[in-house]
Amino acid sequence: MTTLWGGRFTGPTDEQMWAFNASIGFDIRLAQVDIRGSIAYAKALERAGLLSAEERAALVGGLERIAQEFAEGAFALAPSDEDIHTAVERRLGELVGPVAGKLHTGRSRNDQVATDIRLFLLEELPKLGEMVRHLQHALVEKAAAHLDALMPGYTHLQPAQPARFSHWLLSYFWMLERDQERLREIVRRAAVCPLGAGALAGNAYGIDREALARDLGFAGVTENSMDAVSDRDAVLETLFWGALVGVHLSRLAEDLILWSNPQFHFVRLAERYTTGSSLMPQKRNPDSMELVRAKAGRLVGNLVKLLTVVKGLPSTYDKDLQEDKEPLFDTVDTLAMALPITAGVIETLEVDVEAMRAALDDTLLATDLADYLVKKGVPFRQAHHLVGQAVRLAEEHGVALRGLPLEALQGISSAFGADVLAALSFEGSVEARDVTGGTARRAVEEQIHRARERLAAS
Amino acid sequence: MTTLWGGRFTGPTDEQMWAFNASIGFDIRLAQVDIRGSIAYAKALERAGLLSAEERAALVGGLERIAQEFAEGAFALAPSDEDIHTAVERRLGELVGPVAGKLHTGRSRNDQVATDIRLFLLEELPKLGEMVRHLQHALVEKAAAHLDALMPGYTHLQPAQPARFSHWLLSYFWMLERDQERLREIVRRAAVCPLGAGALAGNAYGIDREALARDLGFAGVTENSMDAVSDRDAVLETLFWGALVGVHLSRLAEDLILWSNPQFHFVRLAERYTTGSSLMPQKRNPDSMELVRAKAGRLVGNLVKLLTVVKGLPSTYDKDLQEDKEPLFDTVDTLAMALPITAGVIETLEVDVEAMRAALDDTLLATDLADYLVKKGVPFRQAHHLVGQAVRLAEEHGVALRGLPLEALQGISSAFGADVLAALSFEGSVEARDVTGGTARRAVEEQIHRARERLAAS
Amino acid sequence: MTTLWGGRFTGPTDEQMWAFNASIGFDIRLAQVDIRGSIAYAKALERAGLLSAEERAALVGGLERIAQEFAEGAFALAPSDEDIHTAVERRLGELVGPVAGKLHTGRSRNDQVATDIRLFLLEELPKLGEMVRHLQHALVEKAAAHLDALMPGYTHLQPAQPARFSHWLLSYFWMLERDQERLREIVRRAAVCPLGAGALAGNAYGIDREALARDLGFAGVTENSMDAVSDRDAVLETLFWGALVGVHLSRLAEDLILWSNPQFHFVRLAERYTTGSSLMPQKRNPDSMELVRAKAGRLVGNLVKLLTVVKGLPSTYDKDLQEDKEPLFDTVDTLAMALPITAGVIETLEVDVEAMRAALDDTLLATDLADYLVKKGVPFRQAHHLVGQAVRLAEEHGVALRGLPLEALQGISSAFGADVLAALSFEGSVEARDVTGGTARRAVEEQIHRARERLAAS
Amino acid sequence: MTTLWGGRFTGPTDEQMWAFNASIGFDIRLAQVDIRGSIAYAKALERAGLLSAEERAALVGGLERIAQEFAEGAFALAPSDEDIHTAVERRLGELVGPVAGKLHTGRSRNDQVATDIRLFLLEELPKLGEMVRHLQHALVEKAAAHLDALMPGYTHLQPAQPARFSHWLLSYFWMLERDQERLREIVRRAAVCPLGAGALAGNAYGIDREALARDLGFAGVTENSMDAVSDRDAVLETLFWGALVGVHLSRLAEDLILWSNPQFHFVRLAERYTTGSSLMPQKRNPDSMELVRAKAGRLVGNLVKLLTVVKGLPSTYDKDLQEDKEPLFDTVDTLAMALPITAGVIETLEVDVEAMRAALDDTLLATDLADYLVKKGVPFRQAHHLVGQAVRLAEEHGVALRGLPLEALQGISSAFGADVLAALSFEGSVEARDVTGGTARRAVEEQIHRARERLAAS
Repeated sequence: MTTLWGGRFTGPTDEQMWAFNASIGFDIRLAQVDIRGSIAYAKALERAGLLSAEERAALVGGLERIAQEFAEGAFALAPSDEDIHTAVERRLGELVGPVAGKLHTGRSRNDQVATDIRLFLLEELPKLGEMVRHLQHALVEKAAAHLDALMPGYTHLQPAQPARFSHWLLSYFWMLERDQERLREIVRRAAVCPLGAGALAGNAYGIDREALARDLGFAGVTENSMDAVSDRDAVLETLFWGALVGVHLSRLAEDLILWSNPQFHFVRLAERYTTGSSLMPQKRNPDSMELVRAKAGRLVGNLVKLLTVVKGLPSTYDKDLQEDKEPLFDTVDTLAMALPITAGVIETLEVDVEAMRAALDDTLLATDLADYLVKKGVPFRQAHHLVGQAVRLAEEHGVALRGLPLEALQGISSAFGADVLAALSFEGSVEARDVTGGTARRAVEEQIHRARERLAAS
Repeated sequence: MTTLWGGRFTGPTDEQMWAFNASIGFDIRLAQVDIRGSIAYAKALERAGLLSAEERAALVGGLERIAQEFAEGAFALAPSDEDIHTAVERRLGELVGPVAGKLHTGRSRNDQVATDIRLFLLEELPKLGEMVRHLQHALVEKAAAHLDALMPGYTHLQPAQPARFSHWLLSYFWMLERDQERLREIVRRAAVCPLGAGALAGNAYGIDREALARDLGFAGVTENSMDAVSDRDAVLETLFWGALVGVHLSRLAEDLILWSNPQFHFVRLAERYTTGSSLMPQKRNPDSMELVRAKAGRLVGNLVKLLTVVKGLPSTYDKDLQEDKEPLFDTVDTLAMALPITAGVIETLEVDVEAMRAALDDTLLATDLADYLVKKGVPFRQAHHLVGQAVRLAEEHGVALRGLPLEALQGISSAFGADVLAALSFEGSVEARDVTGGTARRAVEEQIHRARERLAAS
Repeated sequence: MTTLWGGRFTGPTDEQMWAFNASIGFDIRLAQVDIRGSIAYAKALERAGLLSAEERAALVGGLERIAQEFAEGAFALAPSDEDIHTAVERRLGELVGPVAGKLHTGRSRNDQVATDIRLFLLEELPKLGEMVRHLQHALVEKAAAHLDALMPGYTHLQPAQPARFSHWLLSYFWMLERDQERLREIVRRAAVCPLGAGALAGNAYGIDREALARDLGFAGVTENSMDAVSDRDAVLETLFWGALVGVHLSRLAEDLILWSNPQFHFVRLAERYTTGSSLMPQKRNPDSMELVRAKAGRLVGNLVKLLTVVKGLPSTYDKDLQEDKEPLFDTVDTLAMALPITAGVIETLEVDVEAMRAALDDTLLATDLADYLVKKGVPFRQAHHLVGQAVRLAEEHGVALRGLPLEALQGISSAFGADVLAALSFEGSVEARDVTGGTARRAVEEQIHRARERLAAS
Repeated sequence: MTTLWGGRFTGPTDEQMWAFNASIGFDIRLAQVDIRGSIAYAKALERAGLLSAEERAALVGGLERIAQEFAEGAFALAPSDEDIHTAVERRLGELVGPVAGKLHTGRSRNDQVATDIRLFLLEELPKLGEMVRHLQHALVEKAAAHLDALMPGYTHLQPAQPARFSHWLLSYFWMLERDQERLREIVRRAAVCPLGAGALAGNAYGIDREALARDLGFAGVTENSMDAVSDRDAVLETLFWGALVGVHLSRLAEDLILWSNPQFHFVRLAERYTTGSSLMPQKRNPDSMELVRAKAGRLVGNLVKLLTVVKGLPSTYDKDLQEDKEPLFDTVDTLAMALPITAGVIETLEVDVEAMRAALDDTLLATDLADYLVKKGVPFRQAHHLVGQAVRLAEEHGVALRGLPLEALQGISSAFGADVLAALSFEGSVEARDVTGGTARRAVEEQIHRARERLAAS
């Protein structure tokens, strides 16, 4: 097989080794960005006096045709196409002849692939950001539509205090808003161009790296050629980003799976986001959310893969770094599935307001009862203990907290007055928490307002 | 689309959700084992009186034809083929008509896929064992061929004591021998049959599970139907096994990469296991070993994926478990590439005995010098300190340890006698370590003997 | 500071580096096994003629005294005690004088620590096995005590089929039984003795390694000295074992946390395994089970630590391997907390049989309804579809499945007869699954019988 | 035992469960930030009219005294001190009496610990940033001091092109510069205050959250109380940051370990950063760098721990989140050791310029030879092939590339002229790469200039 690098080699290649070594099976996905990089490099070579205008035109014409072939699915791989760079250069030679051999002047696959990856990130990450935004939008609008739905707020999955369903929805908005912020930082940091770093030592042909970077839409150039060819930070940051988004989504999924169980019945997934059973005719399983929950594991694993690969590697480029692409592609693809599915689930979610309200029980008001005592002058810690006794008493008598006779309460503390019952209600409880980020209607409306502002600004 | 489970569903399926949910893209790989399981199940249904002999024959005939279609690449997927089980059942219906609808009697995809995975493991793991064995064989025979090659043994990558190159090779044999032992345990534990566990509650049709298991080559049946459908231990064990094999290979790869560097030049990879550079014409890079080293990261990541997926899952089957297959297949495929490549590298490795010997320097004999003093009656700890001083003295004078004048040594300790030089040699050093597992020729020959016995027995 | 190894060193040690390098902070835990190894080594030196009987007696006496000092908390660390080996050797010198310097003859900390770790594993792993056994016992006896409690069996956390609560409990018994089997394999594989491997090249003093190994209770000796000093497989296997046990426990914990939620109220954790809230007086949170669920993450992380450390390490001993001990100790300690807590939770668990029964609804009988049709001659797949329609019809009419008038059923299929209602009951459903591992009373009793046999045999 | 939350509890606590549940063993480290938070909260309660000025003064006075007790090591833990919050509140009661019971008014440990963690991050992360800066400084100044030292630049650990040692040093500067940028982002994002979020629903006492946040030095407040108490993103980001820094350092360590091997002898670690062997008197092992390399595994494991813990957790606070602190503290402590050690190693590193130069061999000039042909008009790809043949020819004849007779070269291509030898030199090669980030002296000086500017600006 004819390789790019075979001048000093004598023997034939080994088929098994060829298969093990070749990356064309997955880096073919970089075809368009690879060609874009080559077109810019051809222009840079012309600027540096290494190509005539005609030669440059021939190369660019050839490259554009190859780009079209890829776009149309018409590109035919040859057995010697070890990777996407080789494939493009081989085809270019077929199309434009020996001048193709000039394209690689001073360029190495090391700086070329580093450039390709960054161009890929600059293209794909904003798309993921848009999907996150879509999900955020779904959450905010669902919240706005269900402002009055009260439900038990849980901590430790035990009833804690009454809360608004919309407040729960918005809690995920803000997680995702942090994800958006992190994504913008990764994109900004990825936008420096390694092209011109060569194999590891820089470019000997006087290439104007800054102009080349501008041509490709980068904001700057890498500062050190050895670092440039071995730096995979942007990929690792993306993998971590994906893992964290995945973990966030897994929590949302867990909540919805629990609440879809008939013991809760707080929500019901739209039929299209559920599937049935091959054995049990009644089933409507929340497969969509279970898969979203599971994808967190997949995304964490992708991160671990590359961290472990890079750990302890000797300086500059090692072939090990070829293992960066599959986890990266998988993380991007996984999120590009999981994010829209989750948005769809939220948009189409049926909310059973009655079931939520039915689940509200008096123990959720215990804190409010303590608050009542505080207002009567009892220090909070003491109030907490007194209410604890009331809860136990109610439990022992099998009545709700508000079902305890006043005398029973007064047996616990004389601070309890006749106004105590009036002081306790689920609406009153949520309305009392009227601070930034609290459950009061005003606070949640304010939250929705700010969330919409963020969406509008992004 | 017609699904297996659509009776109670009203709306059309959602395309995006369909793509997210479907597993046919990867579980098609289970086609043959899935069909094998179905054939056995048809027989079990006949035994239980649920199928007539004719019906069973029709089903088995249809299934065998489908197996052939898969084997020949002639099986045509339909858009409704959600997974391999669905695809086979759909096609079976086309081939044999309504009787196909009887095959799933009392069976769920939950016990079906659990069975498929185990059949897959029972097929694939022994193949991996054979590849490990091939690599072990290569190591032993290379060791036998280079029994006299001495090299510096390193600890902390600093020269420690002289060692035989063959001893180093054999150190990997024993790592892999432990891997073999672990593999046999996984296979043995995987050989119990979940079929008959149904969706989670067992089989209501009086299936003879033991007979069914025997038919499929299992050694026994699972003891609890809820566990049976959600147990992925065998997959997790396989993923850990793969990660550990990967880590072992990564160490071998690291050694060979280092020793291929011209500063060492202890070994030279056969040309076919190296590749060149697109920029630098002189390059012959050890890509094969770099990729093997990197695969450890990939294999560790696969393990983390599934551990994280299973963590915290509610009882019995959850859709999350569908994420077990891709890491499993990837681990199997990765090892099926990396193991033969590594064996090939060892078999064809050029060994530069002279470079190894040239790297032997006198400091490697410091321990032997201390041993000399011990034989003269100096306690070891004191001898160690005295030799430390001699090493420092030699370093300060820029001479080798054996280049220190006797008087200089005697200035350090009067225990040094005129016989000291004769006591020190690289061969003498390795020969002195004549215990089980030591570097002496006899000990290494014994090691090779035992290694060959193991290979012969396996 | 005086070090074991300072002969050739000139300058003072650096405090920060000393702290970074020293392992005494954690390997002090190996004190007893380290001393045990040294006592055996002293005897081996005597057998090899390197120590007189008096010298051996002096060393053994000193070592025994140090062991006692550690046992009584009376051992005083010196600033120069870099690690447990150094500390013991230093103290031995104080106690018995210069003969202490003979103990290290031919021994390295490399083979010493490898031996210590294995002795540690051989001591600690059986204790963990005993704790697993205790938990298994708790599960079986709880199951035996609640044989008649029926509950919804869930898949995808959606109601699937009726199941026995005891069947659910037993599903965890079998997971843990596999863990037991794996543990025994690890212990068996760990029981080979590395002592005599020296730093990497073996022992030059004719130590009888086999006798030494027997003295320490090992079943055999390591076969290759280079492998012996760098092999951490037994630790990695233990870390994986711990991660898998942790994942199993996390599922049990998840179930109990869900079922403790008042919407389920299937179980109630004993008060002692719950805690309250600093703010909300009514709270009784299942902290015990939440922490057990979380420990899975900790255990997985410990495994990843060491896999990543070992990946790509050059041959034989590297200082990196010092990082093996902290994850190992943490995994052992974590399980030694989580296992008894879980056993205690199970033993004291209150089971609300009425709440379980109240959660049984007719959709759980849909499969039985399909089974009914199969018995009437309808192929299963068709029966599944027909029952799916019945479920939808019942849902649309807001009635239970058994509340559908016979005519309505017959409108779906004429195979439905007047006997259909009699055919459907929760007890009937569980009893119908009378295969090995099924939900029928007989099958569960048989399961309990086998489980008790396993416990008795172990 | 008296707990904060015991009002409704009846039985005694269980010792084992207490130990399992308690976090005081590690969260005691948060004492100072916890107290700081409480002082600010007392002021907020005063502002909200819930405390009189005297009460506030009493509380603040008591808290300040407790802070001092912790600072002086005089704080005595009580058996009932479940966690740091409990311990402080208990002690406060002892010091100031019942008014201590008012401090927790409207506050939960959920928002309290979330605040503590953020205050901890805001204190510790800048210190780590300073340590990174110190290491960057060491790298730049070492680079400035060795500007003329040439060495082989490696890719795939095979000789690639000549490079400056200083260029290699600077490659790590830029990795760390990205780490600095990421750290600043984490700090900025962590600087929002969760206090006032209560257990999950917000604060019912009209606390001015914005003023409270300002008091504590935060830039803003959290927007949603449910998110606020369960958000661990800042910890996860820190753990990822630590893992990535660890991976960067592991590569530096790997390089230095390799180059300390006598076959390279490019560098020599200062004695204080090496240690000796208990067995081999000559040893000077690079333990410092081996441990730094290993810490990457530890840091990756810490990240995996928390990602796995958080995966799939139900909404708001679950006890599982208590597992956030140990990995966080361990990552901070690990870096606080590894960074200064690495800086010390670089500062004191001996550089063997002669050994580096001796390792330069002619194959490193192959690319330059191809560049020569390009300048003669040969397309690069063809030039690459021709030089490949020259390399093979030289190898076959056992001569250096520059040792090939001109005729031999001309036999390969007539483009080779008599000026070819003059065109080839190691200095010429590095000087030719005079682009941003290249190896030319000017480019490296420019790099140093920019690096110093960054350090000055930070």
